[in-house]
Amino acid sequence: MSDTLELTRALVARPSVTPDDADCQKLIAQRLAPLGFTAEHMRFNSVDNLWLRRGKRNPLFCFAGHTDVVPTGPLEHWTTPPFEATIREGNLYGRGTADMKGSIAAMITAIERFLIDHPDAPGSIALLLTSDEEGPATHGTVKVIETLQTRGESIDWCLVGEPSSTDTIGDTIKNGRRGSLTGYMRIHGKQGHIAYPHLAINPIHEAAPALLELTQTKWDDGNKHFPPTSFQISNIKAGTGAGNIIPGEMFVEFNFRYSTENTSEMLQKRVLEILERHRLTFDLDWTLSGKPFLTAAGPLVEAVREATRSVNDAPAMLSTAGGTSDGRFIAPLGIQVVELGPVNQSIHQIDEHVDVRSLDTLSLIYQRVLENLLISLPYSHN
Amino acid sequence: MSDTLELTRALVARPSVTPDDADCQKLIAQRLAPLGFTAEHMRFNSVDNLWLRRGKRNPLFCFAGHTDVVPTGPLEHWTTPPFEATIREGNLYGRGTADMKGSIAAMITAIERFLIDHPDAPGSIALLLTSDEEGPATHGTVKVIETLQTRGESIDWCLVGEPSSTDTIGDTIKNGRRGSLTGYMRIHGKQGHIAYPHLAINPIHEAAPALLELTQTKWDDGNKHFPPTSFQISNIKAGTGAGNIIPGEMFVEFNFRYSTENTSEMLQKRVLEILERHRLTFDLDWTLSGKPFLTAAGPLVEAVREATRSVNDAPAMLSTAGGTSDGRFIAPLGIQVVELGPVNQSIHQIDEHVDVRSLDTLSLIYQRVLENLLISLPYSHN
Ligand SMILES: [Zn+2]
Ligand SMILES: [Zn+2]
Repeated sequence: MSDTLELTRALVARPSVTPDDADCQKLIAQRLAPLGFTAEHMRFNSVDNLWLRRGKRNPLFCFAGHTDVVPTGPLEHWTTPPFEATIREGNLYGRGTADMKGSIAAMITAIERFLIDHPDAPGSIALLLTSDEEGPATHGTVKVIETLQTRGESIDWCLVGEPSSTDTIGDTIKNGRRGSLTGYMRIHGKQGHIAYPHLAINPIHEAAPALLELTQTKWDDGNKHFPPTSFQISNIKAGTGAGNIIPGEMFVEFNFRYSTENTSEMLQKRVLEILERHRLTFDLDWTLSGKPFLTAAGPLVEAVREATRSVNDAPAMLSTAGGTSDGRFIAPLGIQVVELGPVNQSIHQIDEHVDVRSLDTLSLIYQRVLENLLISLPYSHN
Repeated sequence: MSDTLELTRALVARPSVTPDDADCQKLIAQRLAPLGFTAEHMRFNSVDNLWLRRGKRNPLFCFAGHTDVVPTGPLEHWTTPPFEATIREGNLYGRGTADMKGSIAAMITAIERFLIDHPDAPGSIALLLTSDEEGPATHGTVKVIETLQTRGESIDWCLVGEPSSTDTIGDTIKNGRRGSLTGYMRIHGKQGHIAYPHLAINPIHEAAPALLELTQTKWDDGNKHFPPTSFQISNIKAGTGAGNIIPGEMFVEFNFRYSTENTSEMLQKRVLEILERHRLTFDLDWTLSGKPFLTAAGPLVEAVREATRSVNDAPAMLSTAGGTSDGRFIAPLGIQVVELGPVNQSIHQIDEHVDVRSLDTLSLIYQRVLENLLISLPYSHN
């Protein structure tokens, strides 16, 4: 069994259901200490975070990821126990094998091999780990990044180990993400008896034209890097349950996944314009979960694509699809960020798994990324 | 204190919250027995009904009503106890004073005075009482009417004591009611993650054009007796509560209050046509609570209008507005039906009340109706 596979199994054995780290970070810190990595445990509220760094100079290359996993769901639905990673028919099964303890193991073994070849590599290597990526993500990566920024410690390149691959390892990397903006709306009407509609104002009827317009509006066409902005209503509710009452208000929750062709301010303004033009009486609160970000080109993207081409026939596709990730907290500082990790088909599901060979391949890709950025490329930093 | 007021108080003192009769019907049967009324208690399931009749020949005039009342709501909100009818500033307060124990008392005292004047009046007089009008109404008036029909006992004229008046007693009578048709609809989509809308089908978005069309459709223009048919959505719900899930289905409950320009079949067909034209996948169940009915003209309407003109400056307005009533079970047999009772402003509310003088006036109106139909008008029946 390869080093990467063995380390993955050791990490999976720690049941680190979000936000519990279950000593995964301690294991990793101990493993990298002999190689010269200094460990800094940063605990915010009940969230364990770990900042491991080797070297003092820039450029600083950082692997980022999370040790927490999503809950298992009903244990009896798993073919083998979720916290005992088990190999069956070429796959390694277990919670976190794909998202993302396999990636973390691959990062560590890649660093180990890289440092055997290049013990005096220029620049620095770091590992940023959190245990609340799968939770609210408020006391994790965002706080570590704030801490680093406050003391002037700057990352140049960041590779997040999120499972980005579609069919085979390295076929897709995420070089950005759409923004996510949520609206919580209450349409006010006037409650009344259904036999006397002229004495009531039905908020469902009042809102119907505006809701239709919102669902049919084209918010932008997207661009080379982003698909068009999408609008989706996730929750809608009105009514007392009684069949003879016209409800007094309606609740609507909706979400934008938006491209860099829009901003949250522009989207909010356009929604308000539609609601006001339809003369609705409403309250509307907004939550911005993440602005869109993009690492369109540059040394990191080149290094990662070359590394994927070195193991596959073609370089990875660039994609900005999918949900949010902790990249949203890193990219706004001007740090180049890409995400590259296992095939994501089984993540968050029963019988989560990863192709056993793919983790060794991933480790090779990560090692090649280190070589491309710290050894091969002629960068000059302070 | 007048006979009518005293009897109202005795009835209010019996806490007959639907479907409990609390011996109201027994009290009434005992009171009318000396006048020659034969009592027939008809209990269906847990519902008490009473059929009281004096005389064997047609024409048969019938007072109809209910002894049950709606729940009181929080007792501490009542100024005086709801089951102790109390006079304050010219009003009698108590649950059921307006809906409709006051009417029942007025019917009984009207019958008493009428029979003193006309002990040998032609035809018959009856009283049909139920104790589930405020409940599901499935074991009340509808069952009594079925029983009478089965044995060939036919009513000619029926006056229901529902609180029909708007501002002063006798200003409005209901000579019909709109139909009530309810639809329970499930729009089917396909659940998915909000970041991947192309893999999901959002039932809220799918249904939006059809819902708008339903709310904006003109179903008919009404007619001389009925306002236009109204369509109202009472309940709508979709969403798991999670903000990142596109729901798999949406539930919509809607109700038609419809005029005699439409039928339930026509409305159902038009709704289906709209849903199918918008290519929705849906389930749809219907409940028909009552067909529209109308007593447009005839001896009963004339008799009641004349009776109201005898106490007010003008005859009562005819109206078909408002919710359903037990008239829906009586009218389909071809029986002339009107509703005339107290001012309805406080019914079903805390501190329900009725003007104390209005109950005596109502009793006079009822007496006059009896005189108009059984004494003055030259009808010949077998
Ligand atoms: Zn993850
Ligand atoms: Zn009533």
